[in-house]
Amino acid sequence: MFKLDLQLEDNTLHVKELALCQIRLVNDRRYPWLILVPQKNGLTEIHDLSEEDQSRLIIEITTTTRIIEKLFQPEKINVGALGNIVSQLHIHVIARFKEDDMWPGAVWGSGKPLHYTGYKARKLIKLLTKEL
Amino acid sequence: MFKLDLQLEDNTLHVKELALCQIRLVNDRRYPWLILVPQKNGLTEIHDLSEEDQSRLIIEITTTTRIIEKLFQPEKINVGALGNIVSQLHIHVIARFKEDDMWPGAVWGSGKPLHYTGYKARKLIKLLTKEL
Repeated sequence: MFKLDLQLEDNTLHVKELALCQIRLVNDRRYPWLILVPQKNGLTEIHDLSEEDQSRLIIEITTTTRIIEKLFQPEKINVGALGNIVSQLHIHVIARFKEDDMWPGAVWGSGKPLHYTGYKARKLIKLLTKEL
Repeated sequence: MFKLDLQLEDNTLHVKELALCQIRLVNDRRYPWLILVPQKNGLTEIHDLSEEDQSRLIIEITTTTRIIEKLFQPEKINVGALGNIVSQLHIHVIARFKEDDMWPGAVWGSGKPLHYTGYKARKLIKLLTKEL
């Protein structure tokens, strides 16, 4: 059974399961920010995925970036698989704007997250679920 | 004809062309750091690629991360498509170590690059070309 890293679970909210990945919303309203977590245990690098799952991953990344573009019309979308702190393979998809706090820098490790209210989170998750 | 962004050209050295991407070495010896630039004009997001090219991209990313792992045995590989400064689609593949300057933070925008000597760069490019 797939086990999600506890730190990822703490910092994010469940949105939906796709064929490979669990899509989760990072609980930080400074940026519309999703993570895709392939639901297989023991993965840390993209090349740990089978070839079939690599194809699924790129499809699910582009599905997600397209939705992020449609819903938020960002200046740019940042996609990243870092894992220096949480090694369980997860891919960030972040909407970036010229007006955001860190533009044009990277957002990882910058400042403290501002949490969504329960109402806002539920509304956003509903919107994302509908599109995914 | 494919036109590489001038800023990317200035900060990187040519390594090799694969089916889709031009592989380039970032001229910063603080980290073994490659970029993959799909050789089509007018791309900024991963979803701008055709489905066929998206499959090629994920294959070329994993080819590159495997080589980075083999040659440098890093603690973690960071993969990212940001493009907030240079919008031409390019994917970073960076070997990260617990002893590097920015661990466990992200490297983008941190400090000043330390250039390779011509000899070191040629040696590394030769090594990478052989593996790719």
